[in-house]
Amino acid sequence: MAELGFIGLGIMGKPMAEHLLKAGNTLYVYDVVPQSVADLKQQGAIACASSKEVAGKAGIVIIIVQDTPNVEAVLFGENGVAEGIKPGSIVVDMSSISPIATKEFAKKLKAMGVEMLDAPVSGGQVGAQNATLSIMVGGSPENFAKIKPYFELMGKNIVLIGGNGDGQTCKVANQIVVALNIEAVAEALLFAAKAGADPAKVREALMGGFADSRILQLHGERMIKRTFQPGFRIRLHQKDLNNALESARKMGLSLPNTAAAQELFNSMAAHGGSDLDHSAMVQALERMANHTVA
Amino acid sequence: MAELGFIGLGIMGKPMAEHLLKAGNTLYVYDVVPQSVADLKQQGAIACASSKEVAGKAGIVIIIVQDTPNVEAVLFGENGVAEGIKPGSIVVDMSSISPIATKEFAKKLKAMGVEMLDAPVSGGQVGAQNATLSIMVGGSPENFAKIKPYFELMGKNIVLIGGNGDGQTCKVANQIVVALNIEAVAEALLFAAKAGADPAKVREALMGGFADSRILQLHGERMIKRTFQPGFRIRLHQKDLNNALESARKMGLSLPNTAAAQELFNSMAAHGGSDLDHSAMVQALERMANHTVA
Repeated sequence: MAELGFIGLGIMGKPMAEHLLKAGNTLYVYDVVPQSVADLKQQGAIACASSKEVAGKAGIVIIIVQDTPNVEAVLFGENGVAEGIKPGSIVVDMSSISPIATKEFAKKLKAMGVEMLDAPVSGGQVGAQNATLSIMVGGSPENFAKIKPYFELMGKNIVLIGGNGDGQTCKVANQIVVALNIEAVAEALLFAAKAGADPAKVREALMGGFADSRILQLHGERMIKRTFQPGFRIRLHQKDLNNALESARKMGLSLPNTAAAQELFNSMAAHGGSDLDHSAMVQALERMANHTVA
Repeated sequence: MAELGFIGLGIMGKPMAEHLLKAGNTLYVYDVVPQSVADLKQQGAIACASSKEVAGKAGIVIIIVQDTPNVEAVLFGENGVAEGIKPGSIVVDMSSISPIATKEFAKKLKAMGVEMLDAPVSGGQVGAQNATLSIMVGGSPENFAKIKPYFELMGKNIVLIGGNGDGQTCKVANQIVVALNIEAVAEALLFAAKAGADPAKVREALMGGFADSRILQLHGERMIKRTFQPGFRIRLHQKDLNNALESARKMGLSLPNTAAAQELFNSMAAHGGSDLDHSAMVQALERMANHTVA
């Protein structure tokens, strides 16, 4: 059993940390919210006062926080990981952030003798609680092999995509497809409804052919049944598409439909929909058309 | 065995007509290309000199031609179906055309005492040859029941969606989703490639989660392996998206990503790609990015 650090005990991080703890690992934990640290302490974790302290005590430091600037602050901010970490340690960032920034962070850590894996997850809160997350990993095969036993305590579908940043790249690609498949189903079902056909029958017919997708099956049904409680919140998918579009701009890449999908999410936010499920993107199109799917 | 008319003996129509003929039906056939009529005659069909003649001889008239103006010409043009058809007959339009125009055609035929079903197909040339087409039907349940035995000679997944035009609406919805899922996979794989990750590994990882789709599986592989021989030609998908966008404009509906996908197809046409498989849409994004998926 290992000595692990865990920084970020939010909706995702808390159940993930608990799985590591229950497996018998020693867990040094930190979060900006003291209550979150206290909760884990009660379960046997060792409370720390900063990311620096966590990194000083554990040779493997797992991070799962909100977005790129948060990871940067945890790693290189005041009382951050970089101030406490020893050469030979491994930082495992499981946040979903910019692949470009991730490569920079890995380079900075490398210069300090510290290894890094990026390992963003998909599967949401339910996947975190049930330890069924998909984990997309970037980094060296050696470091991947060292951390894999801990990934297996938190997830099921664990894939090494490539070098540093490639896990984040894969996650961004995933979020692009998910957003655009939602948008596709929304346009198609709204077209059907506006033309007077029954969207439920159209969805069923489409599931038999090339148009079939997980999104048609799951999110298509949500659009028809109007079940927009999250699920995956629009505000989080906006963050992921921002990583896509910001990275694309830096790389010189045009993502026209990702940009349009982000605009629809922005419109949802303008109407107070940031905390609805991402399938509610259809409402932005519905408002434009003055017509609803169901 | 029935007396059937069949108008349109192209890549799709020819094998479909052959299935009806082989099952023992009497088949009156017409096509603007005399050789196509001669081919069917050799197999036992009865050659006619016009759509009018077909409609005068058969109580059920099946049509499968290119686009909305072609169907209109077959039905209401000179020597068209309307000039020869008897009240009580059923017109079955298996072309993929505008749902709005289809409703108008059904109304005009109804006024002549003629019933109509719209029954566009998906599955392409291979599906037509193997009698495994998906058939999306609009019209009355009574007429659907009458024609179903003949549909079953040509297809497998045969669904009555709703009233006149709803079959075409379903087909348009299908083509919207297929085009936009192709576009989604193209943006995601190009993002991955440009960011330096292996698109093949990203595709495999994505197939395990919410991003999975038939298009990711089939067309995603084509983008990576650069196998762009059709398959389904860009020029035909352009026609279908034109039906989507034209109908949307008439109905007062905004389909932003369908419009963008059509622009990418238009760009492919500008570069001589009209007869490539629709998965080659990725090339339009690749040109914009000055980078390729593989």
